[in-house]
Amino acid sequence: MAPHRPRRRIANGDAVLTPETTPQSTPQSTPDPDRAPAPPGEPRLREADEALLNALRALLGPEGVREGPDAAPWLREPRDRLTGRAALIARPADAEQTARILRLCAEARVPVVPHAGGTGLVGGQLAPQGMAPEPAPVVLSVDRMNRIRQVSPEDDAMIVEAGVILADAQAAAEAADRLFPLSLASEGSARIGGLLATNAGGVNVLRYGNARDLTLGIEAALPDGSVLRGLKLLRKDNAGYDLRHLLIGSEGTLGVITAAALRLFPRPAERAAAWLGTPSPETALALLHLLRGAFAEQLTAFELMHRTGMDFLAERLPDLRQPMTPPPEWAVLAEVSGPAGSAQRPRLEAALAEAVERGLAADGVLAESEAQRAQLWRVREAIPEANRKVGAISSHDVSAPLSRIARFIALGREAIGRIDPALRINCFGHLGDGNLHYNVFPPKGASRGDYERLRGRIQRTVHDLIAELGGSFSAEHGVGRLKTADLRRYGDPAALRMMAAIKRALDPAGVMNPGAALPGDPPPAAPD
Amino acid sequence: MAPHRPRRRIANGDAVLTPETTPQSTPQSTPDPDRAPAPPGEPRLREADEALLNALRALLGPEGVREGPDAAPWLREPRDRLTGRAALIARPADAEQTARILRLCAEARVPVVPHAGGTGLVGGQLAPQGMAPEPAPVVLSVDRMNRIRQVSPEDDAMIVEAGVILADAQAAAEAADRLFPLSLASEGSARIGGLLATNAGGVNVLRYGNARDLTLGIEAALPDGSVLRGLKLLRKDNAGYDLRHLLIGSEGTLGVITAAALRLFPRPAERAAAWLGTPSPETALALLHLLRGAFAEQLTAFELMHRTGMDFLAERLPDLRQPMTPPPEWAVLAEVSGPAGSAQRPRLEAALAEAVERGLAADGVLAESEAQRAQLWRVREAIPEANRKVGAISSHDVSAPLSRIARFIALGREAIGRIDPALRINCFGHLGDGNLHYNVFPPKGASRGDYERLRGRIQRTVHDLIAELGGSFSAEHGVGRLKTADLRRYGDPAALRMMAAIKRALDPAGVMNPGAALPGDPPPAAPD
Repeated sequence: MAPHRPRRRIANGDAVLTPETTPQSTPQSTPDPDRAPAPPGEPRLREADEALLNALRALLGPEGVREGPDAAPWLREPRDRLTGRAALIARPADAEQTARILRLCAEARVPVVPHAGGTGLVGGQLAPQGMAPEPAPVVLSVDRMNRIRQVSPEDDAMIVEAGVILADAQAAAEAADRLFPLSLASEGSARIGGLLATNAGGVNVLRYGNARDLTLGIEAALPDGSVLRGLKLLRKDNAGYDLRHLLIGSEGTLGVITAAALRLFPRPAERAAAWLGTPSPETALALLHLLRGAFAEQLTAFELMHRTGMDFLAERLPDLRQPMTPPPEWAVLAEVSGPAGSAQRPRLEAALAEAVERGLAADGVLAESEAQRAQLWRVREAIPEANRKVGAISSHDVSAPLSRIARFIALGREAIGRIDPALRINCFGHLGDGNLHYNVFPPKGASRGDYERLRGRIQRTVHDLIAELGGSFSAEHGVGRLKTADLRRYGDPAALRMMAAIKRALDPAGVMNPGAALPGDPPPAAPD
Repeated sequence: MAPHRPRRRIANGDAVLTPETTPQSTPQSTPDPDRAPAPPGEPRLREADEALLNALRALLGPEGVREGPDAAPWLREPRDRLTGRAALIARPADAEQTARILRLCAEARVPVVPHAGGTGLVGGQLAPQGMAPEPAPVVLSVDRMNRIRQVSPEDDAMIVEAGVILADAQAAAEAADRLFPLSLASEGSARIGGLLATNAGGVNVLRYGNARDLTLGIEAALPDGSVLRGLKLLRKDNAGYDLRHLLIGSEGTLGVITAAALRLFPRPAERAAAWLGTPSPETALALLHLLRGAFAEQLTAFELMHRTGMDFLAERLPDLRQPMTPPPEWAVLAEVSGPAGSAQRPRLEAALAEAVERGLAADGVLAESEAQRAQLWRVREAIPEANRKVGAISSHDVSAPLSRIARFIALGREAIGRIDPALRINCFGHLGDGNLHYNVFPPKGASRGDYERLRGRIQRTVHDLIAELGGSFSAEHGVGRLKTADLRRYGDPAALRMMAAIKRALDPAGVMNPGAALPGDPPPAAPD
């Protein structure tokens, strides 16, 4: 193990990214770390010394390393709330280099923070000041591994590397007359590796599932320096534990996904979409069941919007043409799709006529063209942008069983009202999946800053309620660094113990994305 | 730890089930096992002593224990090739009792073999003479945990215990006007716990996925005595590692699934099915693509049959009315289904007309009624029974990418012909999933016994070929005890190391279903 050397700093603009002191991880008084292994769950991490950095520079070459000011692009996150630190940005060219980096860092006990498109909303992809890992990590960027290795329409599959941008993967599938259905607002910059590491969701989950459901196999680099080679194009493979699903959603804490075999689908030849006012969350759910009965899997998306979001859009993005003015209190955007000859449009019209008759939909807009359909989606997908401009006190990505969603919305409103009746709630999202984005804003005219003090209480209130209703505090965004306390509070104790045991087994040096995805503290003890 | 006591025997009919000697697991010369832990990957197991057996009897009561001749039903397997051994059959009433049993056995280092419906074909559910575990295990039967706890059509979900028989789960869903789509030949006796432990497949995977894809969450008992409580009815939950998918398919080597939250679907109001002659595997695949383009997910099943299987049916089950006589060399059974008004029948007719025009189908039978449709499936599902009556030398459950399936069939025939040109091959199965059951039989008139000596060579030939084509030696049946050597030969070394590390982490005493699902030998070393 190399001796300690002076610390490196990387400046991101004017911010010093490496903290001066890392007391809990490199105490002066402990014995030789090689001889005194850290207690389980809290491996002792070290700063990257020149020996490691030189080894990485030699391994990766000039294109493969970014340092100093050039590192800045890897240290931002989408909402600009957090700024990361890095000893160096490592940009491997392939799985073997990735594995070599992990092995070098594990041997040196230097933390690694994997980074793909950098669009995550829970801080899993960067190490901000004051958060683990304490010594500035090596940030491992997958952006250079950006080849589409194979598109095989015959197999309804393609193999893409972790650095491929989602929109490029979609385009490659389309060029082969297939659909890769993963779709979300950040698809122009999110990369496959991050989408899989966080098991991303999006607008088509109702029909096609989450990122994990779209993945046939993965290639991954592991901290022992080996490469897991699991890029099979198989629908069925029961030979051994499902390591694919273990790595997907583990947020880079067990290994780094370097490529994936992804499922493709027939491109729907017919689509129809409607934006409909509906009296309440209850009627929105009844409408969902009606459409699901009428279309089964062909019901592709079912989104809920609240008037608050529409008001924000009108206020902050006034040029965006809204489908219904004035907006109804609740609206849904429903899309159906299917093969040629499957009569999506007339069947949707018939179903909606029944919905109106049953009082489930008041009025609405049926897209008359592909352009109109795209415009409905533009409105839906602009909601997060308007939210950001208004500035939420607290944002939540929750899920609940469908049978309890309406109750969550009603009780949530009451509970937030008890905190401060002037708070505004924008509750919207993927109702078909039981997944709501539930954002709480200051009263009109007030600034977020004046309400920061309420953030903790609001978060606790929303997450306690969702847990009580059998839901999850993290539906599709992951745990990252911002929700580890929630995982500790709401996670099943046996599950947390299993997670800790798996983490120790596969990453004994504890270098893989420390501080993310796991609750951090020692797990609860097993029962007597 | 209790002292050694005289060994117990359980007789299954005339067979003594507990071996007299267990040299590799209880050597006389080793020091106190409590003080000399076994090397990783090879924990030292012990025989169940009276102290443990009495503790289990006290915990479970008379209904919860089966011993002596009463244990026999748990020690058979469907093909009667293997007979298991047991120190005792433990039949817990709930997850807590299950966890308690596991903890007691882990503390006593006594192996546990979990048992559900007992229909597995690869020996994962029993411990035959000469196979691990060497001391006779406690067989943990989930059959008493057979409640359907909840059916929630609003959530398109139900919660069932591990001992529920698949057909009963299907019926419970149907009573709530929903479909639980898992369907396979043994559904009248297979139980949910085993179906999940082995990630079962079946005839509807093409549309609905494997058992794992139908599972929202699980409850499981763990060897540390705790209960994993993960029965959430959520479509999206990214809070932590996906332990559900790790336990599903791990064949009882990490824990025992005691209940599951399962996905339900709308019941298809319309179905149509056809049995079609097709010139070759290539045309069968082209027909699959044609139907998938025309029906997308509504193509529910796509099965391939070879004339050999039809000949076996005619010979061994002559009363079964076959749809086409004489049978064509290759035939497919295709089924489509969808909601009311989705015009399955006329669309299937149109698609088949196109298929005939393009030379993909020669002639065939379109089911004219629900009874005819059911009859087509009866023929398809009788094939394994006729196979058993004929007696295969070697049976294989393989998968390959669709683009390589035809090549597998052609090369397989050549390779088997080189072993002995008189061997007969019955190649059939779930072509839509790339999953074939590939069974090799002695020449007509010869007995299986005369060809036993070829079994190893045939297996190696088939599995080498499928591996070369990027396929799997275990598509839907699992690894069990009969395919551990295949896993060692074909498994990715990094994957085998990860599996071994996870196994050690979660089952440090090594008591969970030893000898099953893992390659057994120490895993290959990590790279330098």
